[in-house]
Amino acid sequence: MSAKPSPVTTTIDYEQEGKQRSYLRLPHSRNSSAWGSILIPMTVVKNGRGPTVLFTGGLHGGEYEGVVSLMKLSRELQPETIQGRVIIIPALNLPAVLAGQRLSPIDNKDLNRVFPGAWNGTTTQVIAHYIHDVVLPLCDAVIDLHAGGYSLSLIPYMSMHYLADETQNQQTFAAMQAFEAPVSLMIKEISGEGLLDYAVERMGKIFLCAEVGSAGTLSPTVVKLADIGVRNLLKHFGILEGEMMTREAQGLPPSRLMEVPSAKNYHIAIAGGIYESFFELGDWIEANQTIGQIHFPENFTWEPQPIIAQTSGVLLCTRGPGFVEIGDSVAVLAQDLDVS
Amino acid sequence: MSAKPSPVTTTIDYEQEGKQRSYLRLPHSRNSSAWGSILIPMTVVKNGRGPTVLFTGGLHGGEYEGVVSLMKLSRELQPETIQGRVIIIPALNLPAVLAGQRLSPIDNKDLNRVFPGAWNGTTTQVIAHYIHDVVLPLCDAVIDLHAGGYSLSLIPYMSMHYLADETQNQQTFAAMQAFEAPVSLMIKEISGEGLLDYAVERMGKIFLCAEVGSAGTLSPTVVKLADIGVRNLLKHFGILEGEMMTREAQGLPPSRLMEVPSAKNYHIAIAGGIYESFFELGDWIEANQTIGQIHFPENFTWEPQPIIAQTSGVLLCTRGPGFVEIGDSVAVLAQDLDVS
Amino acid sequence: MSAKPSPVTTTIDYEQEGKQRSYLRLPHSRNSSAWGSILIPMTVVKNGRGPTVLFTGGLHGGEYEGVVSLMKLSRELQPETIQGRVIIIPALNLPAVLAGQRLSPIDNKDLNRVFPGAWNGTTTQVIAHYIHDVVLPLCDAVIDLHAGGYSLSLIPYMSMHYLADETQNQQTFAAMQAFEAPVSLMIKEISGEGLLDYAVERMGKIFLCAEVGSAGTLSPTVVKLADIGVRNLLKHFGILEGEMMTREAQGLPPSRLMEVPSAKNYHIAIAGGIYESFFELGDWIEANQTIGQIHFPENFTWEPQPIIAQTSGVLLCTRGPGFVEIGDSVAVLAQDLDVS
Amino acid sequence: MSAKPSPVTTTIDYEQEGKQRSYLRLPHSRNSSAWGSILIPMTVVKNGRGPTVLFTGGLHGGEYEGVVSLMKLSRELQPETIQGRVIIIPALNLPAVLAGQRLSPIDNKDLNRVFPGAWNGTTTQVIAHYIHDVVLPLCDAVIDLHAGGYSLSLIPYMSMHYLADETQNQQTFAAMQAFEAPVSLMIKEISGEGLLDYAVERMGKIFLCAEVGSAGTLSPTVVKLADIGVRNLLKHFGILEGEMMTREAQGLPPSRLMEVPSAKNYHIAIAGGIYESFFELGDWIEANQTIGQIHFPENFTWEPQPIIAQTSGVLLCTRGPGFVEIGDSVAVLAQDLDVS
Amino acid sequence: MSAKPSPVTTTIDYEQEGKQRSYLRLPHSRNSSAWGSILIPMTVVKNGRGPTVLFTGGLHGGEYEGVVSLMKLSRELQPETIQGRVIIIPALNLPAVLAGQRLSPIDNKDLNRVFPGAWNGTTTQVIAHYIHDVVLPLCDAVIDLHAGGYSLSLIPYMSMHYLADETQNQQTFAAMQAFEAPVSLMIKEISGEGLLDYAVERMGKIFLCAEVGSAGTLSPTVVKLADIGVRNLLKHFGILEGEMMTREAQGLPPSRLMEVPSAKNYHIAIAGGIYESFFELGDWIEANQTIGQIHFPENFTWEPQPIIAQTSGVLLCTRGPGFVEIGDSVAVLAQDLDVS
Amino acid sequence: MSAKPSPVTTTIDYEQEGKQRSYLRLPHSRNSSAWGSILIPMTVVKNGRGPTVLFTGGLHGGEYEGVVSLMKLSRELQPETIQGRVIIIPALNLPAVLAGQRLSPIDNKDLNRVFPGAWNGTTTQVIAHYIHDVVLPLCDAVIDLHAGGYSLSLIPYMSMHYLADETQNQQTFAAMQAFEAPVSLMIKEISGEGLLDYAVERMGKIFLCAEVGSAGTLSPTVVKLADIGVRNLLKHFGILEGEMMTREAQGLPPSRLMEVPSAKNYHIAIAGGIYESFFELGDWIEANQTIGQIHFPENFTWEPQPIIAQTSGVLLCTRGPGFVEIGDSVAVLAQDLDVS
Repeated sequence: MSAKPSPVTTTIDYEQEGKQRSYLRLPHSRNSSAWGSILIPMTVVKNGRGPTVLFTGGLHGGEYEGVVSLMKLSRELQPETIQGRVIIIPALNLPAVLAGQRLSPIDNKDLNRVFPGAWNGTTTQVIAHYIHDVVLPLCDAVIDLHAGGYSLSLIPYMSMHYLADETQNQQTFAAMQAFEAPVSLMIKEISGEGLLDYAVERMGKIFLCAEVGSAGTLSPTVVKLADIGVRNLLKHFGILEGEMMTREAQGLPPSRLMEVPSAKNYHIAIAGGIYESFFELGDWIEANQTIGQIHFPENFTWEPQPIIAQTSGVLLCTRGPGFVEIGDSVAVLAQDLDVS
Repeated sequence: MSAKPSPVTTTIDYEQEGKQRSYLRLPHSRNSSAWGSILIPMTVVKNGRGPTVLFTGGLHGGEYEGVVSLMKLSRELQPETIQGRVIIIPALNLPAVLAGQRLSPIDNKDLNRVFPGAWNGTTTQVIAHYIHDVVLPLCDAVIDLHAGGYSLSLIPYMSMHYLADETQNQQTFAAMQAFEAPVSLMIKEISGEGLLDYAVERMGKIFLCAEVGSAGTLSPTVVKLADIGVRNLLKHFGILEGEMMTREAQGLPPSRLMEVPSAKNYHIAIAGGIYESFFELGDWIEANQTIGQIHFPENFTWEPQPIIAQTSGVLLCTRGPGFVEIGDSVAVLAQDLDVS
Repeated sequence: MSAKPSPVTTTIDYEQEGKQRSYLRLPHSRNSSAWGSILIPMTVVKNGRGPTVLFTGGLHGGEYEGVVSLMKLSRELQPETIQGRVIIIPALNLPAVLAGQRLSPIDNKDLNRVFPGAWNGTTTQVIAHYIHDVVLPLCDAVIDLHAGGYSLSLIPYMSMHYLADETQNQQTFAAMQAFEAPVSLMIKEISGEGLLDYAVERMGKIFLCAEVGSAGTLSPTVVKLADIGVRNLLKHFGILEGEMMTREAQGLPPSRLMEVPSAKNYHIAIAGGIYESFFELGDWIEANQTIGQIHFPENFTWEPQPIIAQTSGVLLCTRGPGFVEIGDSVAVLAQDLDVS
Repeated sequence: MSAKPSPVTTTIDYEQEGKQRSYLRLPHSRNSSAWGSILIPMTVVKNGRGPTVLFTGGLHGGEYEGVVSLMKLSRELQPETIQGRVIIIPALNLPAVLAGQRLSPIDNKDLNRVFPGAWNGTTTQVIAHYIHDVVLPLCDAVIDLHAGGYSLSLIPYMSMHYLADETQNQQTFAAMQAFEAPVSLMIKEISGEGLLDYAVERMGKIFLCAEVGSAGTLSPTVVKLADIGVRNLLKHFGILEGEMMTREAQGLPPSRLMEVPSAKNYHIAIAGGIYESFFELGDWIEANQTIGQIHFPENFTWEPQPIIAQTSGVLLCTRGPGFVEIGDSVAVLAQDLDVS
Repeated sequence: MSAKPSPVTTTIDYEQEGKQRSYLRLPHSRNSSAWGSILIPMTVVKNGRGPTVLFTGGLHGGEYEGVVSLMKLSRELQPETIQGRVIIIPALNLPAVLAGQRLSPIDNKDLNRVFPGAWNGTTTQVIAHYIHDVVLPLCDAVIDLHAGGYSLSLIPYMSMHYLADETQNQQTFAAMQAFEAPVSLMIKEISGEGLLDYAVERMGKIFLCAEVGSAGTLSPTVVKLADIGVRNLLKHFGILEGEMMTREAQGLPPSRLMEVPSAKNYHIAIAGGIYESFFELGDWIEANQTIGQIHFPENFTWEPQPIIAQTSGVLLCTRGPGFVEIGDSVAVLAQDLDVS
Repeated sequence: MSAKPSPVTTTIDYEQEGKQRSYLRLPHSRNSSAWGSILIPMTVVKNGRGPTVLFTGGLHGGEYEGVVSLMKLSRELQPETIQGRVIIIPALNLPAVLAGQRLSPIDNKDLNRVFPGAWNGTTTQVIAHYIHDVVLPLCDAVIDLHAGGYSLSLIPYMSMHYLADETQNQQTFAAMQAFEAPVSLMIKEISGEGLLDYAVERMGKIFLCAEVGSAGTLSPTVVKLADIGVRNLLKHFGILEGEMMTREAQGLPPSRLMEVPSAKNYHIAIAGGIYESFFELGDWIEANQTIGQIHFPENFTWEPQPIIAQTSGVLLCTRGPGFVEIGDSVAVLAQDLDVS
């Protein structure tokens, strides 16, 4: 199927020097518009030779800091200040972003579960296909900005997978640290076929996934963190000149290197109700401690159901909203990683 | 209409000594249940003579700390430890609580906008009517626990209205302070006909409204705050014995007495988009400063729209989720109140 | 409010001799029809002097035998064969009947909970108001045909309330027995303000409510039962000539006279799940026996929850569909009534 | 209930000289905004003494010409050019206008069926109540601009009711003619309790209702017609100076004076399907002619069902969309009115 | 996948002489019907030798003239009057036609975007697959009748693509002109993979697409136009005898030959709001003229946003409903084509 | 695609001796849970050597007897009492079972129409893929328990297809009879690609489909029938010891061997309305008799539409709910099968 061309069009010429701002346009036939389309803003800034970096935000709606930070970057970045090419798409799954929800309201799909997409698929699949087939081949590195969204609260972190290719692994690791997030996280394994992550990694390129922001809110502190991290990365790749803004320079402790090494680090609800965590983010939890409990407000005869820690670790991520359904993730524990 | 009896029934006898746990039962005819009903858990603990206090939570769904704190109180409170009567309804608008949303999913109504209710109205109105006509007359004080819910983040506070009756005003003020919230807030005027607040105040009783919790999350720190505050109030009213747990005893600064004196303290969005606050809760903002701005992710030619402070004050309450619609509240500023 | 005229119109003249078939017409402004209307078929057959009987079906959608039986009666009844007046509305809440569901899909209301209605209310209330203000005053007796609908399975019965007025009670009792249902049921008390029943009874008229049909199905045996019962009633009132078709003449045992005397006869689910009845309709159950149990297919660690009989009696009515929600009625027991 | 104050607020002072543009603000508590509000733009222009005229548009969404014409008028009108006061609310039921549908998406109500409204009702009722209690008392004349909306196509007309008060009738008639619509229409009777029309007429004021626009479209020709008509009315009332733009001056035939005198002029569908009109707007139809027919695309054995003219007349109004439901209006015939 | 047989069945034998009327039957398992099916009426008329023509309507719901015209043709056509075979499916996407909307309400798909379909796909894909695999191979020519639907108003036209095969191009051109539409339109390129058009063209057959009808309405003038055009085509192909009804014979000007040669002819909204066209259909517009503007009824501080003509041409197609969303088509300009 | 691994995981080891109870876990990203999952209970009991039998229930929601019977079996079965392996999944399409509806509420798909599934498809397809690729290869026989669900009432039967492989046919036939259902049914042909049936049969294994239960209800008599049948099968396969519980031993007539040999046995509605069957289940119907009729409650001028028997036979299956839509199955007739 991938031989088929994408129905997505744009007036932007990726090879043109200078700064271009326009749209990715997808045909979208609706009941109220036979010949409607979806317009996804994109900015391309290019100057001479140098690496190409793609910044994406809004793969999920309801994750705001990255979107706002990239909208600002789109406005500010000028060709004369860079060497190379920067492609910025602050709200890649625009229908989801405008709806403020994780999934596209058009086809109810999660953009970060459908890569490499399909040219004749639903809207979300068509977006994925265009990025995969047209944009990724242009890039040396891809930085994807997420947040916890409505359902998760977390300590802001920049993450990467353990990669088999040593060079790719080292280059990705160096870039991860340049972002200067409070936590730099190595993840051994994520279930997910369909992730943008794997699509990029398989091409041998650098891929980073930031999780900056919690519970569907937009924190000014976290926006600032993203603003700095994004510019640090541009400097790290030699696209922008100037010194990186380290955490030390900001008067902050160094980024904490951690890992989420196994399925035991994840804890899920085995009943629906109201989840009461007994710990705040960053707290240390011992294996077999009770992390929290699930309450049943409709029936006073049912005792709260405890969630027991399967391993020891720091509470990196916890359930965002109070209510929870069976099978939902309620706590992720992380361990410090010794790289000495 | 109020002469008509409520269709709500319960097996609880409010005058009986001891502890009773049961349900308020409302007939609820659905397509999938001709003779269905809604069962709202209620606990009544009574011992001898003493005041009657009603604790309510869950007037809105998605406001969790109060619900959880009152479910625990319902379990723990024993008649032999009290003097008087405590009525606890942790999840008064149960359908909204189970849905995790502010409004009842049955009739789309806000329980805290429909008092005094109607015996032959919709489900939410029937709940309000029963509370108003049957439960409130039994009470000396009513403590209603809210949180910011999905749409608001705020500094936890206990609040009251400025009351015309001096005695009522003083007694309410004393009770407010006994809760030992981070902020104790005097509110000059809220628009709202339909509030439980006014229904109770008009009867000459003590009414307190707590806002403890933010953005639809459930914070263990805030649950603890509610646990302490609720027991402090029981001691304040002489129902429980023992010393109050002051903020001082907890190693905390004293409760900050503040007020929201006018409509100028409230700031609303005049466009829909993504709201980026420039300040964190607790920050001081000068009049005419830009509090934040609204971004438009679908159109890169539209500049962000600023929100300008109409007065000086502390950021007491800010928009919870990143997205905002026209007319939504995005910032409430409060001023310190000098009562010396 | 009742002084206001109904917006409902009809081309039928209730005082005209002969047979008229037409519609009750309600204005109904929709998005797809500014000047739309709802048309409810009605048949009036009149001949000379004699009592007026109103037959209604379809107060709820999804209760089919009565609707079909009355549609046939509407076709067949001819003025020359009667003395008096017969008004037949087979599908009174037509939007609900067409949707096959208990509540009106327009306003989500139960027509049999909104009497006496309101001239300026929602669609269902307007229907109730017209019947109450315009049609009921014309009638001597009202026969309302229901079935269990989607949510209930039951032994077909004709029922009446215990009435304070002795004459009214006796006349109603005689009419109930003329219907020749398998069970004739005395009901001491039903919660329901808003019932058509009370509206008619308060006017001092005869009111009968049949429950003929189960679980949203349409049984040919039960249709035949309704066909016979409806004609028997017309003969009982002297409107039709001829002999009544007794159960004896049909080779059936006599109608069993029973009662549902108290709230203890009703059993409700106290958890949602799959309800497994241990008994079939008509079985005798002893007090404290387990009537059935609720299963939880999503969690194998939760034991089924038993439903215990609060009294002894015959299983008159049981839950229709397998799934059940908290608060739903799952079993009604009836006792034989000795009138000797 | 009308003694209760409206919850609607505005920063506009109706008595202030000059031009003010602001909002009517209604509190609107949603799941995604605890303290949300609806903001309805309003413009008030005042200069010295003179009559007060209220122009409203958007009582229904999906009726566009009036909304656009009044938005332009709001921009252009300057206090120095007028004598008196003009109040302009181009999109009174703003939620319906933004949804492009007749009914409010919030409460599913038709604003022009709920007057005089209710201060504690649903959103649409609150809007009606504010207009009724606060704005109407300020006015001498009210001009309400409608169109056919999605469901109706019609010849643009300005209309009035036959009024019992001779002076009121004559003044209204003169104003109707000043609008210079293609048709000026006398309507003997409309069913509708709840109309803005009656609310104004009962106060003894001038009320005009324009129907300008068809089938949910926006025609530049009709916008121009509204632009001229609205300014003609301002001149007619002596608020604007200058000569009226007559139809003669536009090279058009004079306004045709017609009437819709009885229920026989309205024709409704008695089955749902696709309605095929045999006539275009403006065609003359004889009584008993077939106006059109209803097709059933799902069943080729069903013959089309004819609609027969109940009277002779001009086709003034016909069904907009092809599909039709039972009870919908499909054709309105009008007759010429001889006033010589 | 195409080797798999279609689940669609019919009692019609395509090779049988005479006239057959029946259904295409698709299995359709619903919650309310385990073994349900969709029945799409089809008529096949065959007599001796001669070409096979397929007429389709209702690929989209809400496009009525073609459906009605083909339902009439299905009734009237008799085998003794023809030579060859005529297959008529007036409402191919029946679920969409019955819903009066463009997309199927079952799977939310546009039938004219999913060719060649899939035997194991969703309902709309299964319809496409059956037509593609079973019906198209039987045909020499396919005539597909559309209209603007809810979202577009247009000058009625018959259209074809520029085809690479000269013979196919000439035969199609001749057929296009035989329809005698007001405009005959050459289209250089349409985005659309998934169109029925391409599926037929690739098989080397004649394909014509008519757009007859506007804004979801049903015009008697346009039905007549379709009635004549359809019969003209049958005569053109030698299936029906008799003379063609030319526009000249109808006293009309000749069909205007036009083209839409490039993407610049299409104009889209870059904001959502109310679209006010400054031109009527058929008007000539110069490049860089303002075609219309978008109004924002919710905010009086936002100026209307202009739509600028990217080329000169006749307004062939304009937005149907007043409201518009970002990315929607608002104007298509066409140029006269000189074929001398 | 089938080379790709399933995203479904479980803690159960199929090769482990003893009894294991746990979940199949599917990742399920929702708006309210980024990292959510669906947990489907499964029980595996293994002891030594012997055949492997898979019991499935709940392929459709709303079919309850099989689910309840298998939940009990899951509880009761102990490894020490068996020889071989039993895999039990009582509610395979758990989301549909919890919703009480045939189709999954997540993707609106029928699990028994999507085999062999797809590892990267929607939720229902992922379930099918896991069963097909991982579980079926482990099995010697598969017993799938269905019921009529909401839409069908039927005589309880166990069924099989006529199979081409004689050994497979004989073994399946023997197993069918061991279930001891009231009817044992041979089905010549079912339309359905996508059935679990074909997936198993193609692997050369034994497959049986029970239809036990009617109209969405849960009958204690039918649960007992399933309980006995399931244990009989375990004995038949030599997994459980002990004697089979024959119908004779239960005092019942022997299982009636019948067949549904052709499409003529199925009768469908050709109009939507209320379906009145003239026969009860088990009645004998002659060809050309009227089986029932469809009523139209909205229009008294439309005569009921008869359904005529296309063949003679016993009424095996009839429409469950009274209302019916065009194309729905209303009656299936079966004939006795002579195997002497």
